[in-house]
Amino acid sequence: MGRTLTYPKRVSNTANRYKHRATYDLGPIHKIINDSQVLHVSFNPGPEDPFPAILPMIGQMGSFDYPSASIDEPLECYLHGYVSSRIMNLARNCPEGEGLPICVASSKIDGLILSLTPNSHSYNYRSAILHGYANLVTDEEEKLWAMKLITNSVLEDRWDHSRVPPDRAEMQSTVILKVKIVDGSGKIRDGGVSDESKDYGDEQITSSVWTGVVPVWETFGTPIPSGDGKVAAVPGYISSYIDKKNSQNRALAEAAVKIQLPAEEQH
Amino acid sequence: MGRTLTYPKRVSNTANRYKHRATYDLGPIHKIINDSQVLHVSFNPGPEDPFPAILPMIGQMGSFDYPSASIDEPLECYLHGYVSSRIMNLARNCPEGEGLPICVASSKIDGLILSLTPNSHSYNYRSAILHGYANLVTDEEEKLWAMKLITNSVLEDRWDHSRVPPDRAEMQSTVILKVKIVDGSGKIRDGGVSDESKDYGDEQITSSVWTGVVPVWETFGTPIPSGDGKVAAVPGYISSYIDKKNSQNRALAEAAVKIQLPAEEQH
Repeated sequence: MGRTLTYPKRVSNTANRYKHRATYDLGPIHKIINDSQVLHVSFNPGPEDPFPAILPMIGQMGSFDYPSASIDEPLECYLHGYVSSRIMNLARNCPEGEGLPICVASSKIDGLILSLTPNSHSYNYRSAILHGYANLVTDEEEKLWAMKLITNSVLEDRWDHSRVPPDRAEMQSTVILKVKIVDGSGKIRDGGVSDESKDYGDEQITSSVWTGVVPVWETFGTPIPSGDGKVAAVPGYISSYIDKKNSQNRALAEAAVKIQLPAEEQH
Repeated sequence: MGRTLTYPKRVSNTANRYKHRATYDLGPIHKIINDSQVLHVSFNPGPEDPFPAILPMIGQMGSFDYPSASIDEPLECYLHGYVSSRIMNLARNCPEGEGLPICVASSKIDGLILSLTPNSHSYNYRSAILHGYANLVTDEEEKLWAMKLITNSVLEDRWDHSRVPPDRAEMQSTVILKVKIVDGSGKIRDGGVSDESKDYGDEQITSSVWTGVVPVWETFGTPIPSGDGKVAAVPGYISSYIDKKNSQNRALAEAAVKIQLPAEEQH
């Protein structure tokens, strides 16, 4: 389409520090969410409770109306949960059409930045947040579509390789939340160490403190078959997914170190 | 002490599903928080904003008053941040002695549970939440102690191997939040796959669907020295920390698979 869609900047999603690391583009924000095995979802339980709640949930960005929409186009966030959980009850009891105001967050560490001083220590990381209104998906076709989307985010193609479709009881015990996104933002830190001149100009300090980056990534191990599994060999779609993720994750963490820091952070 | 301290059960932290996976014991909850490289911290920005906010932050449990307190004793949560960030301003502006109500969460995936049906898919995981009131640490000695605690959580012993103590400007730009914990809970899922009899009794299903667990853990890669680093060799405290974490993380994810499921989930 030749244009980049961005989320509107509001006080709640606008970075006021390290602005060059912030992004409001739909593409990178949606990608961070979709690459996450677990999302942290925050909501307010009610006026009697002073504390916001956080739930770990599985979710994915997608568009039921435009299933071929790409990652940088407007998408909804679908979250998977259990029928009687508190967040589902709150969303169910929202006045018609309003939805439960929630925040969805994800953060991934790509490396430890070991600089000369504790203050300049950091992580290479990718993080994203979304704000939006959550409603229960009531359309059966959309719900099934979202369940498949979410299952396949855990392991590519797993849905069609498991016993599907879900039966009536399974459909009833599962609830899918659909979040209409109001705004979002992402923050990405990559590159090497960054120190201040008072320190990197000091021979005594630079000759005594090791500085550099320790890349960090998620590893998938060898699949361990269940005791009563009658399918002995690990199927190709599982082993190739594991191989792909392992090399992608490692390459991403190592490549992040080599990205040039912006001028204001270099020395 | 021969006793196990537990957090009080309130509506906001009590599990209503998979109760056998829930824990209210201080020890395992604090350990999940302290093993996390990043915490998700949620707070309410103010009455004009309907959405709770989530910030990724670095933090650790500890006790300044009783520094030798062990992990299963009452501890505070110390969070590291920048002086002008929104959460710090909110905490700073709270009425004397009240503190900002926040939720601190952490989740770690230890494995993909690949069962016969999408519904019985799961993760092996460890997650924890804490609710509490956050105030800025104003005592300089406590602040310095917390900065050291947090830096050493990124990499053991890093504080003493970097340029310390922080100078005046560094102390001023860093803010530490101290969270007085009101309640907390943890959830730990381990073991293998778990299916329902209608599926594992069906030869056609069990002979076509591979089931098992894919362990997942975090890997630290080979340290990449900064271009101008004058300390050439990677110091022993860094390489031994990396080796230790890599074998611990892997062993934990693989051991989790072998833990026996409770009777109600076995087949």
